[in-house]
Amino acid sequence: MITVPEREVEYQAEGERMIGLMATPDGGPPGPAVLVSPEAPGLTDHCRDRARQLAGLGYAALAVDFHGGGKPLPVEEAQPRLRAWVADPAGIRARLGAALDVLLAEPGVDRDRVAAIGFCYGGAASLELARTGADLKAVVGFHPGLNTTRQAESRNIRGKVLMLVGADDPIVPPEMRLAFETEMTEAGVDWRLVLYGGVGHSFTNPLIREFNLPRFAYDAQADRRSWRAMLDLFAETIGAP
Amino acid sequence: MITVPEREVEYQAEGERMIGLMATPDGGPPGPAVLVSPEAPGLTDHCRDRARQLAGLGYAALAVDFHGGGKPLPVEEAQPRLRAWVADPAGIRARLGAALDVLLAEPGVDRDRVAAIGFCYGGAASLELARTGADLKAVVGFHPGLNTTRQAESRNIRGKVLMLVGADDPIVPPEMRLAFETEMTEAGVDWRLVLYGGVGHSFTNPLIREFNLPRFAYDAQADRRSWRAMLDLFAETIGAP
Repeated sequence: MITVPEREVEYQAEGERMIGLMATPDGGPPGPAVLVSPEAPGLTDHCRDRARQLAGLGYAALAVDFHGGGKPLPVEEAQPRLRAWVADPAGIRARLGAALDVLLAEPGVDRDRVAAIGFCYGGAASLELARTGADLKAVVGFHPGLNTTRQAESRNIRGKVLMLVGADDPIVPPEMRLAFETEMTEAGVDWRLVLYGGVGHSFTNPLIREFNLPRFAYDAQADRRSWRAMLDLFAETIGAP
Repeated sequence: MITVPEREVEYQAEGERMIGLMATPDGGPPGPAVLVSPEAPGLTDHCRDRARQLAGLGYAALAVDFHGGGKPLPVEEAQPRLRAWVADPAGIRARLGAALDVLLAEPGVDRDRVAAIGFCYGGAASLELARTGADLKAVVGFHPGLNTTRQAESRNIRGKVLMLVGADDPIVPPEMRLAFETEMTEAGVDWRLVLYGGVGHSFTNPLIREFNLPRFAYDAQADRRSWRAMLDLFAETIGAP
């Protein structure tokens, strides 16, 4: 593990006490920053470690809390919350908006060079934040959900969108991808979607095997390639630190 | 334009006298090499310049002749030839196979580090070469045709496949992409497809506007991004020179 300065940060969202992890580069002038949203269960070490990796590369990064207290929920408790946020994204938008404010208040952050990334539902959540018109220069989803009830609000997306999808992801079937294509194109978004052959859901998460779900699988190669694709987009938008 | 050693190379394919352009790095030990296939009309400066660019980066590169004499054909003369090769790829496979032999015979080429790339029909042609079982470590198509009459032969593909497609490409509609997905997945190929939003056909070719066709358009950003995606795959397969 890369060692970078890190600390827990507390903030409120919709009356819940959130605890995220702020990981920062070791000194230097204000630079680019990344909001990192976790998979559906909420903030885990998978998400924290990505924030740490980004900080090791020179990006200030905040790993976001979804469910309060800085802890994940069991899947059966997380699911009803996620279903509610899919139906009406106000709750998840509030949570990510509050986290974004925390990140923007960080002294080492250049407010004009901020991106949002997310894994699984965190990818969908990052898109919801972008649909509020937040000043995000890039939005990156790893095995993201691509559905929303607010397609028309994609016109508010200001940054460049990159979605990294396993072709065998059972959560993101071809018809969902096509609907997303249409949505992004009609909204005039600068978007890209990379489809990884032979790759399922949660391909960035080595611990996903514990859930023992069909076509949920870590894929080291897709993990490396997608991370690289994200860094390429960062170089193009928020800059290499 | 980058200045690299280059020369015309003559070879035979199916009784036609072919003239390709060989561009090579300036000295050094045997290194990686790339077969570069042109758009439908055949060998133009667009294709030659890509070979020169690759040589400037340290890759030996052969710009391939499709129609003989090292010259493009008017579209109306090229079309019947292409239609015949789509129906039965033997002719295009023979042409690319002969070109590959020329590239492999080049002293500066490491035969274990060879990729094929192609533009428009050249992308489809590169896939046809790969379907013969040719030892290509990577196959990259820029705004490629994705259809073939020999889907089952994709099991012979040995290298990694990367297709770079404009989401608005009128030649590559969503149903063609889906059929390609199914084909590659069933064949067990290591494949990826990048979809560029708001991008049409021939996005790498600044001269395409002369054809004045709807949704055929150069796109500087997609051109840069796709070239970068290709170089990333080269780094992963045939190595950076």
